Amino acid sequence: MTDYSVIVIGAGISGLKATSDLVKSGIESVICIESRDRVGGRLNTRQGRNGKYDIGGSWHHDTLSNGLFMEEMSLPESERAGFVFDDEDRACLVDKKLGVLEVDQLECLAYEFEKWVEMRYYDSLDVEDVSYFQLCIEFCFSRKEFLTDEQLYHLPQLLRYMELWHGVDWYALSGKWSGIEHNGRNALVLHYDKILARISNPVKDKIHLSESVNLIKKLSNGKYQVNTDKGKYLCDYCIVTVPQSVLAISCEQEENEFSHMRKARIGFEPPLNGDIFEAITTKASFGSLGKVIFEFDSIKWSKTSGRILTVHEQPTDFVESIRSAKDLKTLLKDIEQKLPRSHEDSWKNPTCFLNLAKHTDTASFVALIQQPVTEYIETLTTEEVEEFFRPVLNKLLNSLGSSDYISDLNDEVKESKTPILKNILTSNWSSDPFSLGAYSACQPGDDPMDLVIALNVGQGNLRFAGEHTIMDGAGCAYGAWESGKREANYIIEKLFTGSDY
Amino acid sequence: MTDYSVIVIGAGISGLKATSDLVKSGIESVICIESRDRVGGRLNTRQGRNGKYDIGGSWHHDTLSNGLFMEEMSLPESERAGFVFDDEDRACLVDKKLGVLEVDQLECLAYEFEKWVEMRYYDSLDVEDVSYFQLCIEFCFSRKEFLTDEQLYHLPQLLRYMELWHGVDWYALSGKWSGIEHNGRNALVLHYDKILARISNPVKDKIHLSESVNLIKKLSNGKYQVNTDKGKYLCDYCIVTVPQSVLAISCEQEENEFSHMRKARIGFEPPLNGDIFEAITTKASFGSLGKVIFEFDSIKWSKTSGRILTVHEQPTDFVESIRSAKDLKTLLKDIEQKLPRSHEDSWKNPTCFLNLAKHTDTASFVALIQQPVTEYIETLTTEEVEEFFRPVLNKLLNSLGSSDYISDLNDEVKESKTPILKNILTSNWSSDPFSLGAYSACQPGDDPMDLVIALNVGQGNLRFAGEHTIMDGAGCAYGAWESGKREANYIIEKLFTGSDY
Repeated sequence: MTDYSVIVIGAGISGLKATSDLVKSGIESVICIESRDRVGGRLNTRQGRNGKYDIGGSWHHDTLSNGLFMEEMSLPESERAGFVFDDEDRACLVDKKLGVLEVDQLECLAYEFEKWVEMRYYDSLDVEDVSYFQLCIEFCFSRKEFLTDEQLYHLPQLLRYMELWHGVDWYALSGKWSGIEHNGRNALVLHYDKILARISNPVKDKIHLSESVNLIKKLSNGKYQVNTDKGKYLCDYCIVTVPQSVLAISCEQEENEFSHMRKARIGFEPPLNGDIFEAITTKASFGSLGKVIFEFDSIKWSKTSGRILTVHEQPTDFVESIRSAKDLKTLLKDIEQKLPRSHEDSWKNPTCFLNLAKHTDTASFVALIQQPVTEYIETLTTEEVEEFFRPVLNKLLNSLGSSDYISDLNDEVKESKTPILKNILTSNWSSDPFSLGAYSACQPGDDPMDLVIALNVGQGNLRFAGEHTIMDGAGCAYGAWESGKREANYIIEKLFTGSDY
Repeated sequence: MTDYSVIVIGAGISGLKATSDLVKSGIESVICIESRDRVGGRLNTRQGRNGKYDIGGSWHHDTLSNGLFMEEMSLPESERAGFVFDDEDRACLVDKKLGVLEVDQLECLAYEFEKWVEMRYYDSLDVEDVSYFQLCIEFCFSRKEFLTDEQLYHLPQLLRYMELWHGVDWYALSGKWSGIEHNGRNALVLHYDKILARISNPVKDKIHLSESVNLIKKLSNGKYQVNTDKGKYLCDYCIVTVPQSVLAISCEQEENEFSHMRKARIGFEPPLNGDIFEAITTKASFGSLGKVIFEFDSIKWSKTSGRILTVHEQPTDFVESIRSAKDLKTLLKDIEQKLPRSHEDSWKNPTCFLNLAKHTDTASFVALIQQPVTEYIETLTTEEVEEFFRPVLNKLLNSLGSSDYISDLNDEVKESKTPILKNILTSNWSSDPFSLGAYSACQPGDDPMDLVIALNVGQGNLRFAGEHTIMDGAGCAYGAWESGKREANYIIEKLFTGSDY
């Protein structure tokens, strides 16, 4: 068996960064084992008809504190990936009946809501977590005296925008952890493949693609044995950068309904320690932010708005329900009945559309969807996906000054005054056994801190990196990158000071 | 000499609240001494031609945590003052040349700037405070790579909006303390006189109007002797609620150029203790948020925007200066030369206009101005004030779809298709010796915490209340109100538990 100093498991951006930093520091005895036939993990740039798209992570978040972004900016322009600041000053909301919504103070109310949530959970650490759905309805109920009918009706539509950040619908999303504070604007990357190539090319010969790890075993001499479907290796340090979802199925002891997805499962001997096991199985969840890309023949709509939110359909007596409610508990039940959890109609949930016409002059929209819509959509055929989105897509186009589109997925129509839909690309994060979703998420009662702490401590020379192992930059490409840097540094220090063994 | 349990000095909302709470708790031996011929202090509702205006404090700030607002809301509607949420989702900016500005991502950049300032001062407590002017220019300089020419040119114009919150221009405003975080929306009160009457009416017989305190002396028996221009009183506890500016002149030992304003000076024997003296003379400043009200014959402009900011004129080569600058220090000097500190032209500083047409269907604008513009304006005649504001006021009206106005302060014109200016009301906070400005402010290097702590500790039974004595709600009516409640509670507890003397 070949004996390495370090084996990195997973060639996502955290694994690539760790591998690269180790090699740069002079530690040449490193390999990075990746189950897929490509590097990047949940960063994935795909070629479409109108150009390339990042079907997974596609932003530089927190550009005031984003180390990866700063590194990019320190390079000559030709060597770095392009980007465009696509945050909008104001959300453009499109309602099924009303079209573009212009409601007075709706953005102010969203800020007020954020502050209200912050005050609720920051005053005391022990306040019970509830779903984001419950929080939204509770805010409407408790502040109804200060809301007009119009605000009361549309505020929940705007607030659900948060679902498209977390990839989880409001019933499953933790209220306590739903708030997202940004350190500066967010920039759409054009595209991540260039960044990945920059980091991975210098360590290309260290990366084993299409090789799956199935066992990590600590030997009595302190070394780790890593078994894959292609061979066995020994190492002193092992950095596990697989997604939290893969750690979760690795914690499952028995066969169950998800066993067909256990292809990516890794056995640990000894098993993952109590803190990690406990956190993964009881304090952490996973979301499926999905993407659907609609490619048209040419731009036949307005470039004014770069981000459009098609909002969920509201029951007509929503305002009346809130105004007449006597207590919150009954109201919540009432509203839940009126807002059935459905993903068979595109107006039942909010969808966020990036209008690439504005940002990159491309005749394409990127739709962001949330769990459980993602799971549903990712099982459909292209024709079924088209059918599902047609109502919101047409309303969106109408709101941008265009007529309904013509569906032409077989590429037969040559010309038309109305937009011609030529191609659809759909993500597959929820069905892919090596991701099982887009990134870590919080359901009511979860506590990401517990998992981050347990994984930072690690298990001896078994180390962990990835977006789920860090607080600043959690769920972000740069967070994953920082975590890879962190673990490489940890090992470099140990090896060079000899403080470990 | 009459001997009281408590003497409250000042019948602003803090003094009124303290007096009222003391009496409610059964302590009847209380008087409240007020130098003006009215209650309210820096809350002052004046009658104009088109209606009433709060020439001083006029908002319920932080409506999620504002105790005074919550008390109001617990009353039957007929007993409470009306209010209207007048926060705007987005600032409407009016430029001298361009009219209404619609710059992409300008609001996003303002948020980014806020976050940048927060990160700068929160990472370490020892970061040097600089002026808000310097911070704004430094942000533009350090982030210029991420800003378009248009954003770079207009961003400082938007950022100066902060001057109209603090009542201080950006050269004199502390960068460190400039950020304002709101606990929820802010509501324009219609008007504060009703709230003041509600609090003061039950204790009317305790209030001495038009009586000025000139000495507070601690006697050897522990009692305090309070000398006014009308008599002498004894008391066990004394609550001093005069503005911080009056405390500042009370700290001055010698006659100086401001001696003519020393009418409001109070002598303290023994002098104010070292902590209070030190904080007042070196760590605290005072701002002059002024108001000018323009009353027209009838509404002949758009009601769409309720808050309009006329922005300061920018030098044409501002962007070039920033792009070509080699170092910050030289750039700051360069910009300061191009942006002379001038208050003789209404385009040299930003002004915030409340469009009361939107909020109360009144043909009036309320202009908010900052130090040193306030000092200048408050010395002018009504005709001079009109002349000063004419350029921005006309541009404002044009931007709201109206033609230039006709000035008719003598009420001679009967009818016109264009707005007829009928009356102007101007605040006098900066010249009034009992306020010497609108409310406490921070200049670079100040630290409000030091003063708040020193005044909360007090000096034995000499207690302090007012907007400058509290952190949550500093500078706000509700903060002053809370501080009055705090001091009343302190004394009530002492008197009823007998723990003091």
